Amino acid sequence: MIEILGITGVGEIVPGCDLAALLADALEAMGVVPARNDVLVVTQKIVSKAEGRGVSLDAVTPDAAAEALAATTRKDPRLVSLVLAESSDVVRAVPNVLITRHRSGHVMANAGIDQSNLGPGAADRALLLPEDADASAARLHEALAARFATPPAVVVSDSFGRPWRYGVTNVAIGAAGLPALIDKRGEKDRDGRVLEVTQVALADMVASAAGLATGEGAEGVPAALVRGLAWDAPDVPAAALVRPPHEDLFR
Amino acid sequence: MIEILGITGVGEIVPGCDLAALLADALEAMGVVPARNDVLVVTQKIVSKAEGRGVSLDAVTPDAAAEALAATTRKDPRLVSLVLAESSDVVRAVPNVLITRHRSGHVMANAGIDQSNLGPGAADRALLLPEDADASAARLHEALAARFATPPAVVVSDSFGRPWRYGVTNVAIGAAGLPALIDKRGEKDRDGRVLEVTQVALADMVASAAGLATGEGAEGVPAALVRGLAWDAPDVPAAALVRPPHEDLFR
Repeated sequence: MIEILGITGVGEIVPGCDLAALLADALEAMGVVPARNDVLVVTQKIVSKAEGRGVSLDAVTPDAAAEALAATTRKDPRLVSLVLAESSDVVRAVPNVLITRHRSGHVMANAGIDQSNLGPGAADRALLLPEDADASAARLHEALAARFATPPAVVVSDSFGRPWRYGVTNVAIGAAGLPALIDKRGEKDRDGRVLEVTQVALADMVASAAGLATGEGAEGVPAALVRGLAWDAPDVPAAALVRPPHEDLFR
Repeated sequence: MIEILGITGVGEIVPGCDLAALLADALEAMGVVPARNDVLVVTQKIVSKAEGRGVSLDAVTPDAAAEALAATTRKDPRLVSLVLAESSDVVRAVPNVLITRHRSGHVMANAGIDQSNLGPGAADRALLLPEDADASAARLHEALAARFATPPAVVVSDSFGRPWRYGVTNVAIGAAGLPALIDKRGEKDRDGRVLEVTQVALADMVASAAGLATGEGAEGVPAALVRGLAWDAPDVPAAALVRPPHEDLFR
């Protein structure tokens, strides 16, 4: 049995707050003691808020490239300017769509910049992704080890669209304490045939499972504990999930 | 709390078997009585087996197009012939990679044709996707309604790769009794701002959650019951998840 427990009572997240302590307090208030192979999935929004990644659009002066891309995509030039600053590459730009490769390597809409649920009067605010979500996950994992005898693994989740499918699903942009990607290359099936599916995106599947409890994290459930998993592979960060541009099969 | 219960004891699946009855028997043997909003996620492999979608490669005579594509992709021409027969479009063909649009609209490797875990001595066997996985899900859902007062929704799952990310995750290729896609277009966030994320691929997230219990369905856990979800949207099938070619953002 696998259990997904939405974490409530984390409270308002402000820049510089001790997010690990708030999450640990919330777990304790719920009577939850982390056990082996537990994974705490934390939505990107509260990680970014705690890390002070909020930006005022009024402070942004778009250059000519941002203005041109804003015209193409019909987006706010200030937002586009932020997207470009966060990205290494524009993957697709058409009206209402701006897909880029974030400098972390993850390909997503608007470089993951979020403008919803940032609070009343925040119409001109935007929230960037964490500087390094794997490092964020590692810091949370480490800080939770100071609070719990068996600290949970940590996944930082975000919701991504997909090229050929409607709707977002949650994926991992940061991970610590678990194998974000499990490599089965060379393993054989029950009949001795080499496996066709050779790599499993464990952290993405865990993020989607947790997303069933958290949604976008905006409804008072900004994290979830996933319990009952088993794995037998070394820890690798979410960066291992990124397929580098030269291996991109679909361009 | 959301729970994911791997379903064991389903037994060997043979063409023409009553899969709904086998699944219902397995649930009963586990003492599980389906409750409101339960989702039974069934891996594609057992649905295809029950529907007699196994094919002998020896019975396939590749034509020139299949031979040429087999040379490009370094795959068995007989397999490529089956892939082409199952597909409306080749999306990408390079050495060791053949991505097509299955005639259901889903874009995936090898048209979803599976050659692993088909039993001993099955080196020349292949297993096609169900003819219509939404119809398969609907039939299972209906048959389960004859066994249980509150039949579970049904998702038929498969594992897909992704363009920019390593590793497979599980997605829904069939769904009945739940909204595979939840459309939030026009809804507003807590601050009255129109939501940026407007469509959520619920069935894909449920499939990935179940995949944490089933894996590829080959390890004796060919289905999982997901319990504790809540939704407030009309039922739509997995076909609603397919982004049609003219809306494909990434070509």
